[in-house]
Amino acid sequence: MSKNILILPGDGIGPEIVAEAVKVLKLANEKFSLGLELVDGLVGGSAYDVHGTPLPEETMDKARAADAILLGAVGGPKWDNLEDRELRPEKGLLGLRSGLELFGNLRPAILYPQLADASSLKPEVVSGLDILIVRELTGGIYFGKPRGIRTLENGEREGYNTYVYSESEIKRIAHVAFQSAMKRNKKLCSVDKANVLEVTVLWREILEEVGKEYPEVELSHMYVDNAAMQLVRAPKQFDVMVTGNMFGDILSDAAAMLTGSIGMLPSASLDKDNKGMYEPCHGSAPDIAGQGIANPLATILSASMMLRYSLGEVAAADAIEVAVSKVLDKGLRTADIFSAGMTKVSTEEMGEAVVAAL
Amino acid sequence: MSKNILILPGDGIGPEIVAEAVKVLKLANEKFSLGLELVDGLVGGSAYDVHGTPLPEETMDKARAADAILLGAVGGPKWDNLEDRELRPEKGLLGLRSGLELFGNLRPAILYPQLADASSLKPEVVSGLDILIVRELTGGIYFGKPRGIRTLENGEREGYNTYVYSESEIKRIAHVAFQSAMKRNKKLCSVDKANVLEVTVLWREILEEVGKEYPEVELSHMYVDNAAMQLVRAPKQFDVMVTGNMFGDILSDAAAMLTGSIGMLPSASLDKDNKGMYEPCHGSAPDIAGQGIANPLATILSASMMLRYSLGEVAAADAIEVAVSKVLDKGLRTADIFSAGMTKVSTEEMGEAVVAAL
Ligand SMILES: CC(C)[C@H](C(=O)O)[C@@H](O)C(=O)O
Ligand SMILES: CC(C)[C@H](C(=O)O)[C@@H](O)C(=O)O
Repeated sequence: MSKNILILPGDGIGPEIVAEAVKVLKLANEKFSLGLELVDGLVGGSAYDVHGTPLPEETMDKARAADAILLGAVGGPKWDNLEDRELRPEKGLLGLRSGLELFGNLRPAILYPQLADASSLKPEVVSGLDILIVRELTGGIYFGKPRGIRTLENGEREGYNTYVYSESEIKRIAHVAFQSAMKRNKKLCSVDKANVLEVTVLWREILEEVGKEYPEVELSHMYVDNAAMQLVRAPKQFDVMVTGNMFGDILSDAAAMLTGSIGMLPSASLDKDNKGMYEPCHGSAPDIAGQGIANPLATILSASMMLRYSLGEVAAADAIEVAVSKVLDKGLRTADIFSAGMTKVSTEEMGEAVVAAL
Repeated sequence: MSKNILILPGDGIGPEIVAEAVKVLKLANEKFSLGLELVDGLVGGSAYDVHGTPLPEETMDKARAADAILLGAVGGPKWDNLEDRELRPEKGLLGLRSGLELFGNLRPAILYPQLADASSLKPEVVSGLDILIVRELTGGIYFGKPRGIRTLENGEREGYNTYVYSESEIKRIAHVAFQSAMKRNKKLCSVDKANVLEVTVLWREILEEVGKEYPEVELSHMYVDNAAMQLVRAPKQFDVMVTGNMFGDILSDAAAMLTGSIGMLPSASLDKDNKGMYEPCHGSAPDIAGQGIANPLATILSASMMLRYSLGEVAAADAIEVAVSKVLDKGLRTADIFSAGMTKVSTEEMGEAVVAAL
């Protein structure tokens, strides 16, 4: 039975890094007889340029039909000044997430031992770091209504957004978080601002309630300001963290950067049946696009995460991760993770090296 | 002409650290003939315990009458489960901020050379760090309405808050930020999430507009997730950062923690006439309250900031800062900033040492 994989390169460095991940996927496909069928699609600014919309109906149809999706990244200054905000590249990404109900976003922050030096933190603070941030991805202030900019009676304008979560939205992400914690060290820290925001008072209450179904998991709560501090001060205190869309955006990027190598970190966005979209944690990096120097490893590892979570192909996933590790052991480094004594390679050389190791 | 200073010790370690700052203020008062009259008041949980409300009318009256306010910190587990959320300690603090229209919150993140080791970041990443975060303090999602928890037609509950800013609210904090940048290195980074949130699209637009009045200041914009990353990766790229209430809460705590010594950092909250409330950046630390080990230096430096910003007593403010620096040079350290080879002192010993140095 063949599996249908939608490949969405997107914008900026997206096409370059996805090209390397596709090479790796194709080889894994042959080697492990995975029966993958790769289909291409457009999303983001590159879709807007062709179809006048960042999420063409055709892409949405392919996404619904796919067993899993591999995405590069979207966005860039070229489209930042589009008058109609609904046409901006980010709307393509947000539309995919909400249209497919990919509410469970898993963002690991792992320090690769070979890259320990890349962190801006002291080695003893981050060595062995392995955190998983579970971010709610289809609700909260990202999608809340009413929203917009209106003119008040006194003539001045006012911008407004709505931060909203229902019990059922909180429950389903809570289950994802507790289940993730059960597979790891059974510690879950839920992040909120319950001393100020009512929506997170409900969040905290539901987390407590769902927690009763997972008595083995040690649940704690932390205010978001303190969580940002604790990530800087002593990140190894955390195992799994769970939080809403906005706080998750901020904290997962901070956590990823603790490792010093955000170019290495994959992410998964899953629906209730573990169908998912996989993408690197980093963005489209328009400043270095087209130069062939971007790090393709986060995208390659996203492909491996896809094989593991959505397709159940554990052996192939393991093999890709081993191949990446070997390439790092050899001292091959793209510019973002380069340090003295290593060998600097291009996007393509890095991709080819992983293919060779596989 | 005498100046009226309201002292609000608050909860947790508040009373201990404020007691030391008051000693320092009293001595400065004599030495520099400042004509300060200190008045005491209750706020937070300790006010609730006596008056059944975290912000008694009496305290609000004293605050309105005062020329400046020195606050310790509020909050603690004792009051975390109060059914009526309006009675929680934090509401006292938020009520003071909004009641006095203290919209301009200045939070410096400075690395004291004597404490360079305390940071969890590598020395080369943080040495010489000196950032000022300007946080809007009386608007945004902290105060936006509608807010609450309601029951939907299908029977499930939903929590909601409103993130809202008007043009005039954005303008006045923008001016504070640009003026702060003019006194420093003339670089201002405004933080928003304009690729997703409409309210911050307006924010960005107004910042651009106000920026035209400060042509010498180099204005840039950054998304909040990237700002959280950049603070971890390369914090010295920043001079002044300006953002809304919620993002400011998160980023200022992260920035403060970069220094490793949040127990050293003061803050100011100013109204349009520079009348202000001064408080340490850290919280009420209920876990160590009553043990006499808290660091009083952030509160002592808050008192110095008060003399400088609200009272124009520059000589006295300088003298207090020099005294603090001397005490650090001598190797005196409270537990939070202790390292091998230094002398560990209590809250009171630290306060007395500053008094002696002054
Ligand atoms: C591009 C942007 C809309 C997106 C987000 O904020 O979710 C990105 O920052 C991310 O974290 O995936
Ligand atoms: C105590 C709390 C309400 C407050 C805030 O969130 O503003 C605190 O975290 C701060 O930063 O001063």
